[in-house]
Amino acid sequence: MVVTRRDVELAATRIGAHVRRTPVLQDTPELALKLELLQHGGSFKARGAFNRMLAAGDLPEAGVIAASGGNHGVGVAHAARVLGARAEIFVPEICSPVKVEGLRALGAHVTQTGAIYAEAYEASAKRAAETGALEIHAYEQPDVIAGQGTLGLELLDQTTGFDTVLIAVGGGGLVAGVTAALDGAAKVVAVEPALIPTLHDALAHGGPVQVPVSGVAADALGASRIGRAAYDTVAAAGVRSLLVEETAIIEAREHLWRTYRIAAEHSGATAMAALLSGAYVPDAGERVAVVVCGANTDPSTLV
Amino acid sequence: MVVTRRDVELAATRIGAHVRRTPVLQDTPELALKLELLQHGGSFKARGAFNRMLAAGDLPEAGVIAASGGNHGVGVAHAARVLGARAEIFVPEICSPVKVEGLRALGAHVTQTGAIYAEAYEASAKRAAETGALEIHAYEQPDVIAGQGTLGLELLDQTTGFDTVLIAVGGGGLVAGVTAALDGAAKVVAVEPALIPTLHDALAHGGPVQVPVSGVAADALGASRIGRAAYDTVAAAGVRSLLVEETAIIEAREHLWRTYRIAAEHSGATAMAALLSGAYVPDAGERVAVVVCGANTDPSTLV
Repeated sequence: MVVTRRDVELAATRIGAHVRRTPVLQDTPELALKLELLQHGGSFKARGAFNRMLAAGDLPEAGVIAASGGNHGVGVAHAARVLGARAEIFVPEICSPVKVEGLRALGAHVTQTGAIYAEAYEASAKRAAETGALEIHAYEQPDVIAGQGTLGLELLDQTTGFDTVLIAVGGGGLVAGVTAALDGAAKVVAVEPALIPTLHDALAHGGPVQVPVSGVAADALGASRIGRAAYDTVAAAGVRSLLVEETAIIEAREHLWRTYRIAAEHSGATAMAALLSGAYVPDAGERVAVVVCGANTDPSTLV
Repeated sequence: MVVTRRDVELAATRIGAHVRRTPVLQDTPELALKLELLQHGGSFKARGAFNRMLAAGDLPEAGVIAASGGNHGVGVAHAARVLGARAEIFVPEICSPVKVEGLRALGAHVTQTGAIYAEAYEASAKRAAETGALEIHAYEQPDVIAGQGTLGLELLDQTTGFDTVLIAVGGGGLVAGVTAALDGAAKVVAVEPALIPTLHDALAHGGPVQVPVSGVAADALGASRIGRAAYDTVAAAGVRSLLVEETAIIEAREHLWRTYRIAAEHSGATAMAALLSGAYVPDAGERVAVVVCGANTDPSTLV
């Protein structure tokens, strides 16, 4: 299942009134930063959540359901509130009280269950089967991927052109959506923490495989396997995956604050880390866009 | 002495290669946020510093000199480093070691002297007379004002139009520069902490007067008197001044972080405070631009 540019264009029509067209900082002619951390909920996740809900048409009485203690949960809770739907969010027991409170503040009904994400997800799927609520998966569903991809259409419109875009990868929804949106107009480079190589290992094995998950960006990029449709979409487009070390991610986050006063979370700084660490070296004159995708961070750790 | 749009246009030509065209977040059709906190040095001050230096032509051997422990000092130090000039920055003894270190990291020669800003300023003026260094005042000089105004030209170009722009005021350089840049294209509303009413009291008295200085935004808006050219420029244009309370500034700063993940300092949130507190109430359909002008803050205090 490959997500197409047409899917993303349809998504943009659906969600345009509900998401922020996040600004681009054109720092130099060769470097554009897409400030998606300024999106509703502090990450790109609201895009996919809105598209999944609006594509579904009339929502069930039971509303929507998702499993995530992180950005996806916030995105779903926000979209549900805006659209007047009930939202149930399942989070693992380790989820911090601050995050649970944040979800409740958005009006979501939160259930804490399971030691790890996978167990919370299983519980959410079982609950959805009972109630008939619409499941919104963080990265498996084509409508979610297409929603995330609307960021790519904006980028095409907001710059005078770019040759390459660097995007962090967890479950693959954002990178797949943007790959579909660009449809060959620019090269897509996926950037992953070396400790969570979901796409890297999948490309090596010819399909999604289970990977270990750890490191500073695990709270947002910590999928243990890339989504099927995401994989198919990026593999068909020949997207490469680059790995970056923990120190490079930490330094990139500090750099974004020190140099631009951009308060990114570690996942949001992962794409930038490829550029700063030399994991990605642009050609002379190559115009690079970097997606800064999330800001759900404790700002006291920025300095 | 009134600064004109032509002065600002000349400034834009001079400094265009050196400053960031900071992005605009068009949150709704009626609300645009100019993200000037993403400027080099974390505030708009680099604009005026570059323009003053480039307008001066060949710089003296002794370089440039300024008095400021805050954003202006950073802007001058940054511009001097980029242009290869020596920079001396005079700061009062109360200036925090962190700020002094920050200026030194930019290559500036820092002198700590005087109990308050005015004493540091006097020492810097004396030193400039001795060495022949070019003085860069934070808001008195027309070239500095014209440099800050380049932000206004960008705003005209980056939006589809706006009716009103809200700008925080300290010494008045930014509000005067933007007033000149807009030249009547939109209404300029000055916003000041009630505890530092430099423009408000000047308008009431028909000219610059000394005001007391205190409150959360005093580190950046704490001029004790509005600049002469700044006053003349905004008074001639009929700019109004609105006062906002401390709590409104604090809440606006929290709102910018919570709602947008924008990490503003208190001065940077002061214009927004007018809108959120109801000190400024737009008409139905009125399109408002808010300048978020600084981010030199301790991010651990954002939440």
